[in-house]
Amino acid sequence: MSEEAKAANTADIRIALLTEYDGTDFVGFQRQDNGRSVQQTLEEAVEKVYGRFCRIYGCSRTDSGVHAKGHISHVDVPFPIPADKIPLALNAVLPEDLVVKAAKEMPDTFHARFDTHGKRYCYRVRNAKVPSAVNRRTEAFVPGVLNVEAMNEAAQAFVGTHDFSAFRAQGGPDITPIRTMKSVYVKRAEGDPDLIEITVIGESFLYNMVRIMAGTLVYVGQGKMTKQEIEKLLAGDGVRKEAGKTMPAKGLTLEEVFYENLKW
Amino acid sequence: MSEEAKAANTADIRIALLTEYDGTDFVGFQRQDNGRSVQQTLEEAVEKVYGRFCRIYGCSRTDSGVHAKGHISHVDVPFPIPADKIPLALNAVLPEDLVVKAAKEMPDTFHARFDTHGKRYCYRVRNAKVPSAVNRRTEAFVPGVLNVEAMNEAAQAFVGTHDFSAFRAQGGPDITPIRTMKSVYVKRAEGDPDLIEITVIGESFLYNMVRIMAGTLVYVGQGKMTKQEIEKLLAGDGVRKEAGKTMPAKGLTLEEVFYENLKW
Repeated sequence: MSEEAKAANTADIRIALLTEYDGTDFVGFQRQDNGRSVQQTLEEAVEKVYGRFCRIYGCSRTDSGVHAKGHISHVDVPFPIPADKIPLALNAVLPEDLVVKAAKEMPDTFHARFDTHGKRYCYRVRNAKVPSAVNRRTEAFVPGVLNVEAMNEAAQAFVGTHDFSAFRAQGGPDITPIRTMKSVYVKRAEGDPDLIEITVIGESFLYNMVRIMAGTLVYVGQGKMTKQEIEKLLAGDGVRKEAGKTMPAKGLTLEEVFYENLKW
Repeated sequence: MSEEAKAANTADIRIALLTEYDGTDFVGFQRQDNGRSVQQTLEEAVEKVYGRFCRIYGCSRTDSGVHAKGHISHVDVPFPIPADKIPLALNAVLPEDLVVKAAKEMPDTFHARFDTHGKRYCYRVRNAKVPSAVNRRTEAFVPGVLNVEAMNEAAQAFVGTHDFSAFRAQGGPDITPIRTMKSVYVKRAEGDPDLIEITVIGESFLYNMVRIMAGTLVYVGQGKMTKQEIEKLLAGDGVRKEAGKTMPAKGLTLEEVFYENLKW
């Protein structure tokens, strides 16, 4: 029997895991042949605690360098541990850049990836003369004053259902470019006005989409693009090279994932 | 002529440097025989830019692991570079965990250490079931709900001029334990209620003083100490072992240093 088949034993208990990680030293969420992934690190911790390999299913892949404060996974484990004890047990064997914040027992119909109906991302830009030393791992750096009001106004063009062809990485999987954004807003952080936070809430996202949206909004902040140009790109004939740059991975954090059937 | 003597040449120009650093990978501000210090790293950068060794004088030492967002140094350099270009020149040769945010030409009577009339520190405590992965470098971790209102109320006992003998590390230099705190307050961070920020503004501080004050306030938050007990410790007969624990260095950040003759 393969390890995957063993992991599918019917007596198993499905649990959802709420995890936070600093993406700096991971190759991303998904297992890779070479490199330290979030998935593999979680699977190794689960194996240490439960004594058996159990496949972790994540709500989404995050790229190398992207952080998460509210990533959701599910896993089928062979015996019950009280849900409030699971984080303690797993954190005892996890490295400090990957933390299980909470766990919850779920019906075996729950699926971390297929049941989500939305995600909230935050893209952080240090807009100052120099980068931050203390926060350098979680922020991109853009010198020169950005017009945040113009960025926020232009960001409203993304809200609703549009063709995001201009806002996807080339070479991504061949899926529909139609996506629905529920809310996009740009503001300077409370108590730290040099930090610009671009918050994007949407049902689902294309590859590199938030990072390209952020790069496009930076162009708006620099006066290089207008809201009308974004609207035109979203109207159906947008091409990637007409949108902004793909911003660095380290500025992106997956903040929250939404489910009808899972509240923390 | 010694390097120090060379650095004191009268034609030199005194500049103040505003620096930010992530203390995680430094042995502290001050040069050490073994290990990477902020002072040495800055001196090496200044030497690369100005072509000569110039001694850096810091506003204060910070311990290994302590961070700074607004540390001030002064240094005498052999030729003028426009003040707004100095950060760019130094940052080009500094590692990314140490950043010069601004520079200013100062009269040669200015002294980064002797001219300060106050400092603002922030001690950060993650108060949640599990530590943060993303922010782990700049926060201490205390599980179990802390009573922040009680902490803030008790913190008011520190305000004013008191004998802080109970709040200094044993083995520190033998100086007066009388210190004046201008403001101390405790609150949950905006937008991140699991993060408790203990802000301390004072004229000057004893060795480890803020970290011991933070540990004492954590005891208050846990119901193990009262404001009255802090008042008694400050009344003149306080001993170190009756105050709280010295909290970890990584939670402490030097946020701002105050001068009459230097504004940024």
